[in-house]
Amino acid sequence: MAEGVKTIAAGTPENKYDILIGEHLLDDLGGMLANLRPEGRAALVTDENVWAAHGARCSSSLSRVGLDFEPIPLPPGEGSKSLRELAGLYDAFANIPLSRGGVVIAFGGGVVGDIGGFAAATWMRGVPLVQVPTTLLAQVDSSVGGKTAINIPQGKNLAGAFYQPKLVVIDTKTLETLPEREIKSGMAEVIKYGAISSAGLFESLSGRVEEGSLSGVIRECCRIKSGIVERDERDFGERILLNFGHTFGHAVEKRFGFERYRHGEAVAYGMAMAARVGERMGVTEIGTSDALKRLLSIHGLDTVLPCDPSELLPMLAADKKSAEGGVRMVFLRRIGEAFTRRVEFSELGKLMKDAVTA
Amino acid sequence: MAEGVKTIAAGTPENKYDILIGEHLLDDLGGMLANLRPEGRAALVTDENVWAAHGARCSSSLSRVGLDFEPIPLPPGEGSKSLRELAGLYDAFANIPLSRGGVVIAFGGGVVGDIGGFAAATWMRGVPLVQVPTTLLAQVDSSVGGKTAINIPQGKNLAGAFYQPKLVVIDTKTLETLPEREIKSGMAEVIKYGAISSAGLFESLSGRVEEGSLSGVIRECCRIKSGIVERDERDFGERILLNFGHTFGHAVEKRFGFERYRHGEAVAYGMAMAARVGERMGVTEIGTSDALKRLLSIHGLDTVLPCDPSELLPMLAADKKSAEGGVRMVFLRRIGEAFTRRVEFSELGKLMKDAVTA
Repeated sequence: MAEGVKTIAAGTPENKYDILIGEHLLDDLGGMLANLRPEGRAALVTDENVWAAHGARCSSSLSRVGLDFEPIPLPPGEGSKSLRELAGLYDAFANIPLSRGGVVIAFGGGVVGDIGGFAAATWMRGVPLVQVPTTLLAQVDSSVGGKTAINIPQGKNLAGAFYQPKLVVIDTKTLETLPEREIKSGMAEVIKYGAISSAGLFESLSGRVEEGSLSGVIRECCRIKSGIVERDERDFGERILLNFGHTFGHAVEKRFGFERYRHGEAVAYGMAMAARVGERMGVTEIGTSDALKRLLSIHGLDTVLPCDPSELLPMLAADKKSAEGGVRMVFLRRIGEAFTRRVEFSELGKLMKDAVTA
Repeated sequence: MAEGVKTIAAGTPENKYDILIGEHLLDDLGGMLANLRPEGRAALVTDENVWAAHGARCSSSLSRVGLDFEPIPLPPGEGSKSLRELAGLYDAFANIPLSRGGVVIAFGGGVVGDIGGFAAATWMRGVPLVQVPTTLLAQVDSSVGGKTAINIPQGKNLAGAFYQPKLVVIDTKTLETLPEREIKSGMAEVIKYGAISSAGLFESLSGRVEEGSLSGVIRECCRIKSGIVERDERDFGERILLNFGHTFGHAVEKRFGFERYRHGEAVAYGMAMAARVGERMGVTEIGTSDALKRLLSIHGLDTVLPCDPSELLPMLAADKKSAEGGVRMVFLRRIGEAFTRRVEFSELGKLMKDAVTA
């Protein structure tokens, strides 16, 4: 195996797995999969761009160990996280045929991990899943922790499953072919980890992050996240803190359609909004919102939306954390410390007024 | 609560729940649900026939405790276990809106329990589920144990989840409005429990089962099943024994379309076939197949199909227990004792030849 590979032990008491992080790990993917001794042919869910950029390396790695697989490339973009594409995956799995002892490899960004993971969670009531995330966002966030989902017209991630992978393989070299905008989008989630649980990480991001140190940042994020998930897989307590910026973020994605803003861009906006609203409520230390906006801006992330914030209110009602006229939201006490609190929509409307531009 | 209610403690180490069995339990349903303290409006997944027969009692029971709910009646029949109806349920859940702390009540037969359960398992990655089975088949089998699923064109139950309910409420009075054919279909699963794990139950079924004793039979079946599920929720060992007759049974359903045979009728055929094939392989005691066919026939279940058994072979390849040219099947050693064994399709073809009519 390549040198300098870091391993993080992750998972829940019932489902333990390793997160492997290093350069060129794709070349070792075949061997790692062979260790899982999958039965029959594997399903490799990917997207067309990822497959064009890294398909050859992936293929030769799998072929080298004689692992027979079927690549299933989805169109890139959030639009693929649909029931329609899910039906297409089931169809492809049936034709492979993918057996209960087989394996699903989710090779791509957050969209591929989410829908590929959900398909694996539900095919024959669950087949082994290996996440091979290729975007910064997926490497630091969505590939770890077992949340899988698809979107329905009424909202993001409304259908899904908690389903832990058997292995997560993070090849940091795949980030080199990522568009700048994708890196920025991932940095929003990185900044989120700092904001909710590590002032040290937050501070370290205020200079430009060099390529070499990005690997350390990814490791730190995976460590924070897997710790939280181990203590609260099902999202009833501490795990909710990972949703910092996501309540507003999902509303932004919904207000402008899923294609206009990258997920991280929407979350950046959401974090700035949550910090400002928290300050106005008196629960967040004054200055937190400015510190957050400054760091987001260093990483090229905008926090001003082309609409009045109050236009997001109707979208908040469909959020998974919403119930009976209010929503449980994540606020910062200060940088590095977060908590949840229910806010009534009526109050939120006033708090959001001109919040970002104010 | 009504007198004579029997409680069976069921579930897995992580998810324990009660199965309540008694007459007129529907009238107490509201109170039982209120104990779960659901948040917001409940979703009540049902089918049109069940709702017509029992909707009024169910409604008044829920209304009496002030539980607000939305009935979602599906067209009756296996055709409703589809991705299309699942999308319809998600849509209805979003419109309720059903929150994470809400509850899904699956009120009906196996189809309603399977798709309603799968929708509950995947809505917001899982909301509490209460099974209220109204057919004999659902009461003795599908409502207990947490298997949920839908069908896809390539096969039955190919997409689904293991998802334990919070409560199972069995009102044996609902059986009184069931068509004779539905009772017969459920008796096939009852006979299955006897065949795989209780010679005593098997013997007791050889006289006509009176209405009063049916309640005892249901209890015995739930007891057998919940014991097996507790020891092997994920279907890797002992639980596979519950599939006795189902490998052939699913093939029958597929060969003739899901509407022609009731599930239990197909399983009756499958059990007879598996017993006969087992005798031919020398793994099943001679006479077992005749005893089984005799008992099935006492309960009006036919074991002769209008096709050559070998026509089922192509359908077996898509079974969840199939891999690489063979299938893991359940056989009886004798009445009351079962085991699994892999059979190659090539061998199976010969063993099945004229098996039932021979």
